[in-house]
Order: sequence, then C-alpha cells, then structure tokens
Amino acid sequence: MSIGKILIAQGGGPTAVINQSLAGAVREAMRHPGVERIYGALNGVRGILQERMVDLSMESVANLERLALTPGSALGSTRDKPDEAYCQKIFQVLRAHGIGAFFYIGGNDSSDTLRLVGEFARRESHDLTCVHIPKTIDNDLMENDHTPGFPSAARFVAGAFAGADLDNQSLPGVYVAVVMGRHAGFLTAASSLARRFPDDGPHLIYLPERAFSLEGFLADVQGVNQRLGRCVVAVSEGIHDAAGTPIITQLQAQVERDAHGNVQLSGTGALADLLTESIKKNLGIKRVRGDTFGYLQRSFLGVASEVDRREAREAGEQAVRFALRRRESGTVALKRVGDYAVDFVFLPLETVAGKTRVMPDAFINGAGNDVTPAFRDYLAPLVGELPVVSRIFSPRVAPLLGA
Amino acid sequence: MSIGKILIAQGGGPTAVINQSLAGAVREAMRHPGVERIYGALNGVRGILQERMVDLSMESVANLERLALTPGSALGSTRDKPDEAYCQKIFQVLRAHGIGAFFYIGGNDSSDTLRLVGEFARRESHDLTCVHIPKTIDNDLMENDHTPGFPSAARFVAGAFAGADLDNQSLPGVYVAVVMGRHAGFLTAASSLARRFPDDGPHLIYLPERAFSLEGFLADVQGVNQRLGRCVVAVSEGIHDAAGTPIITQLQAQVERDAHGNVQLSGTGALADLLTESIKKNLGIKRVRGDTFGYLQRSFLGVASEVDRREAREAGEQAVRFALRRRESGTVALKRVGDYAVDFVFLPLETVAGKTRVMPDAFINGAGNDVTPAFRDYLAPLVGELPVVSRIFSPRVAPLLGA
Repeated sequence: MSIGKILIAQGGGPTAVINQSLAGAVREAMRHPGVERIYGALNGVRGILQERMVDLSMESVANLERLALTPGSALGSTRDKPDEAYCQKIFQVLRAHGIGAFFYIGGNDSSDTLRLVGEFARRESHDLTCVHIPKTIDNDLMENDHTPGFPSAARFVAGAFAGADLDNQSLPGVYVAVVMGRHAGFLTAASSLARRFPDDGPHLIYLPERAFSLEGFLADVQGVNQRLGRCVVAVSEGIHDAAGTPIITQLQAQVERDAHGNVQLSGTGALADLLTESIKKNLGIKRVRGDTFGYLQRSFLGVASEVDRREAREAGEQAVRFALRRRESGTVALKRVGDYAVDFVFLPLETVAGKTRVMPDAFINGAGNDVTPAFRDYLAPLVGELPVVSRIFSPRVAPLLGA
Repeated sequence: MSIGKILIAQGGGPTAVINQSLAGAVREAMRHPGVERIYGALNGVRGILQERMVDLSMESVANLERLALTPGSALGSTRDKPDEAYCQKIFQVLRAHGIGAFFYIGGNDSSDTLRLVGEFARRESHDLTCVHIPKTIDNDLMENDHTPGFPSAARFVAGAFAGADLDNQSLPGVYVAVVMGRHAGFLTAASSLARRFPDDGPHLIYLPERAFSLEGFLADVQGVNQRLGRCVVAVSEGIHDAAGTPIITQLQAQVERDAHGNVQLSGTGALADLLTESIKKNLGIKRVRGDTFGYLQRSFLGVASEVDRREAREAGEQAVRFALRRRESGTVALKRVGDYAVDFVFLPLETVAGKTRVMPDAFINGAGNDVTPAFRDYLAPLVGELPVVSRIFSPRVAPLLGA
C-alpha cells in the first residue's frame, strides 16, 4: 500500500527544536516500506513552487540526529502566505513529482496553507494527504495545550530574566526587557518562572491580552521602585492600546509590514527604548536599562527544554504514522494528561488553520500586570528544572562608626 | 599569626562566575585559623563607606556552593569610583572594624580603588593587605592572558551568534547584533567561535580597536550580501570614528554618562537600530534585523564555561593564599601555559590598576572587519566545546516542471 513519495517542509519562524520534528518525521518515514522517497522542500512552500527540493532519503541517520539538535529550520523557511494561484502551482509540483503526502511543520499560517493545498487537491480529485506538524514559540495554536518550540523559548526567557534580575539586584535600577509574541503573551509570561524569592523579578509583566496604558505602566513601575528600590519588567512586543494599535507604531514613522500585513515588531530595540525613555523622563529614575531579547529567544544554541525536544520529535513521528495509517489530512495536536504527560491527537486542519489562541483569563492577574500561580503550574513541567540560584543569608555586621 | 578580620567586596559589572571567586575566597579563608572573621561589604566600596557589611563566616558551605553557581554579584555591586576623601573614609571603616586584608573582586577600576586605599593605609602606617581578584567580561586587564567572567560571556556570545546565524540561514537577510565592550573587542570577536562551515556567520566583525566608517561598513555588508544572499554582522557597542567619537553619540542628543565620565553604551538598542536603518536606506535590502545582546551576555542563567568556573574559583582561593602567605598588596593574574593550562601569579596592583588592554593586532585581520585564526586558537580552550550543529547534505531533486 504505497503512498508514493512524501514531501516535508518547514515554514514561519524557526525554533530551537523544529529540526527535531523534521528528524522525527524522516526517521519514522524511513521505517515504512510504503514510502518510496522522502523529499524536503527548501524554504517552505516557496521551494516547492520553484522545485527546489532535496532527497532526504539519502541523509545519514547520524547526521539526522545532529540536525535534530540544531536550532533553526534546516530546510530553510519562508514567510510566503500562498493565495489560490500559489496553491495551484504547489499542487502541480506535488502531482508532477508523485507526492502522496505533504507534511508542513509550522504555525497557524502554515496549517492554513495546507488546508488550501488540500482543498485544491480534492477539487482536482488527486489523492494527497496534507498533515500539519505544530510549531511556534508563540504557543498560539488552537486545540493544543502547548506547541513544540514554545517550551525551549520559554526556558530561554526564564533564564534570561533570572540572570537579568540577579544583575539588577547587583546594580539596582529599572530594567525593561521586550519579549516576542504578537497576539499571545505566553512567552512574555514565561519570565515569571525565573522567580525564586518573594522580591525576585520580573515584578511587572505586560501581555498583549490586556490593553496597555503608558500612565498605568509608569504608575506600576514607580510603585515597585519605591517599595524595592529597583524594578524588573517583562513586556510583550505586541502590547497595544485600548484601540488595538501596537505601542511600537507610536514611534515609528514608517512601519514595516510582512506578507500577512503584520507590522514588523522584532529586530529593533525601539519599543524598549521608548519605555525606558518614558521612565527616565516621567519618573526621574536615573539608572533605567532596556533590552530586547530579539532572535536569541528562538534560536540560541545551547538552551532547549528536554521535554520540548522529545515532544517535537514525537510530533513529527506521529504525523507520519497518522498519515500512513489514516490517509487523511489533519493536524497533530498536543493534549495534556495529568501532571505531566502528553497525548498526541489527530484533528481536522480547520480546527487550527488561521486561528490564534491567546492566554486564558485564569493565567492573568486582576491588575493585568502579572500572571497567576495557575500559569506557573501550567508552564513548569514544560520547561524543566532551571539551574539553582541562591542569595547570601549571613547576618549583618553591627556598625561601629555610624556614618 | 592572625591577620584579624578580612573583608571581601565585589565591584563593577557582574558576571556569570563572579560568585565563584567570592565562594573560593570565603572557603579558602575559612580554612585558615589566622582569619578571625570574613566580612562581606554590600554594594562594593559604597557598602564599606556606609558600614553595610555581613559576616560571611556564618554562611553555610552548602549555600556558598549554590551561590558559586549563581550569576550576578551576590554581595551587590557599585559603579562608585572613590576619590581621595572617599578612600580615607573606606580606610577609617576598615581600621575601626579591625580589617587586616581587603579583597576586591573587579576590573581595572576596582584595582585602582584598592591601590588608592592601600596607599592611604601606608601613609597612615596601618597594616592592611589589599588584594585584587580579577573579573571582567571585557577581558581588558593588563598582565592577564584572560580574565574570569570573559570565557562565560564569550560562550554566550558564541551560542547567540551560532543560533542567530542558523536563524538567518532559515530566513535570509541582513542581521546585525551589538555586543558589549567599550574599548576592547574580545567579546565581540568571540562571535567568530560560532562558525563551523565556510559560509557561516558572522561574516563581518567590527571592533573598537579599529576606526569605524559607515561607508566601509555598508560596502562590506553589500559585498557579503551579494555573494551569499544574506549577511550576519557582529558589532562592538564601543565602535567609534577615526576621531575616537563613539558611533552611538551620533544619534543620541543627550548621552548619559557614568561616574567615570563614560558614555552609557548598554541598555539601549539605538546603535543596532542606527546600523539597520542605514542598511535599509542605503542598500535597499528589505529584511534587515538588529539585536542588542544587552545584559543577557553577562548574566544569563544557564550558560557558563566550565573552565571559567574553575578559574574564577581558583582566582579567589589564590588571592587569599597570596595575602596570608605574603602579607602584601597585589593582584592575582592569569597566565597561559601551553595549550591549555593556567598559572596564577601575584603582581603589584600598579600593573593593572586603571589600565586597559585591547586586542593585539595579531588577532585582527588586515581589513579590520574580522578576526584571525590566532584569535580562535586563543579563545577555543577558554570557552569549551559548543553544542553540535549540522546541515542537510541530501542531494537535490531534479526539477520536472522547470518553472
């Protein structure tokens, strides 16, 4: 019962573990005699359009295992969002090459592309199984408890804030760091996992799920700074005012938009600089520093969650098994079972395609400037244990001069 | 032969391993019966001035070992640079508390402070041993092959560029990342350690040891981008024009200066944004992204060099041994022996105090936009092995449609 050749591609922003899913899918497919060849498209759907593909059947297992540990999209990625005509061309290439199953590792845009290509194949009565393998550091896919890539990015963000907070304890002041996430605040909220002691930062967390007001922000920072003599703040790049306008557009005369019409948020320190300047100007605090974690949070070599690695691998394996067993299109979704196990289910593409999941209200505090303990319970098993940190507990020496 | 009480303090920017030196000094001092008490000053010299000290003799060994693994300055730090009057007050506090030896973990400013305090004690004929324990991610101390803190920060920078380059391979464009280092380019140069394959980034490296010209920079970027279709660039925050004016001052109307009169370089994304805007405007390249590594590179929880950890620990231990054995002021310096071992020597404070070491010419290429193989040979044993990365080696599939 041959399925012919299969094709795998990677789309959207890379993650630390997206190549685990690739390696998982390829190695699983290698085990099935019904798979004639395993092709990989370079740069996602764009590579299909341009017939730029490689024969992954020839890849050594040793190299696939090295690839699995390598951040970034080994096949290359794309930001293209195919329209009807684009999808028709994709379909023509798949048909010409005898592709029986198409696996696309990506976020909700990628799953929507699969849905469109699958519909086209159905209209042309061509037998094509389209399977989506979930991936996004934003953790914003519907139907998923969480998505591969998010736990590793969350681990980076937690480690970054743990360190930045220790740095801020050493040299007190206000520190603001901007974290990726356009619509969903999960990754910004992961900063909370860095806290060990009651006065540890981040002391304030601003998410795109709540409207942002500069006045409220400044009042919050002043309050923390008066109480602790310092303040560490986590801010999502996607924060916006009550009208939904991104705060970053308040300072950029000409904003850059991607193929999806989205304003470019990453790759600039402008938002952090706006916020730190506001604090200096309005609150008169002297030492105010801003960082933007940028591409490090999704690509850093050397920080990955072990749970994430295993799950990303298995998402790729499960996708191939579902496709070969059921011969129907769909998406692999991760469901949480107990505390903590994961179950992989197979759902229609429509359930995730083009939709965005945001943080549930139960994860955000009433003031809208922090997370709840429920969020930490949700996140902790995904990220794994963080390195130990401590503080000095020695008693104070009595002053003799009383200067 | 009691030395009385000893006092330890931490100054300047924190590192990932500065608490190893603290733990090393405290645990070594605990072994010597001649040490009456081990005090720690909070926030460096400022804490001495204000008599804010703790009795580290009471710290548990278990907690000292946890502290050793904790980034940041556990005692707190300061940017104060004491003048004559300040040093007199420091001396009065030390004398009042019966301090026989003062250990200051810090960079060249901290060693200069020790020198001043030591001179004051000598003038007052007070028996005080002042010992400097080296620390700086900038790696800019004279007489040292390298300084504790630098290898761990270098490991972070290498891992960051390795990941950012993989990200850039996935979604090609121009990527510019700004690295800490005011006068010395060692940390920016560490980005080179990320390269495994001939076309890996960073493709261009700009150091404060060479004058920076925006025109030359743009020509370099254009050349690489035309050749590879992408370009990854490492830039030191300290780059300056031929007249020595920092490039960052070209865009900040009101620059912030620290107590030493230095322009504030970190804690803002302005330099990266200036460079990426220049590339967009002058070269017409669409996807241009800029990151500023900021405080993560010196504080990130979870990335440290094992060699750095051991050496930072031993620098603290050696300082206490030198002080108790010789009863004279000085600095601990790290000398390289063979490939690779380290030897700790004891030198007069004057050899490092207030001086800055920069990268030797042999480490910088002729064009001034990259490092030499000699630099990689120098750096590699300090950073330790980086995680494995790989690429896809599969053969291309022959096009059938030839679109």
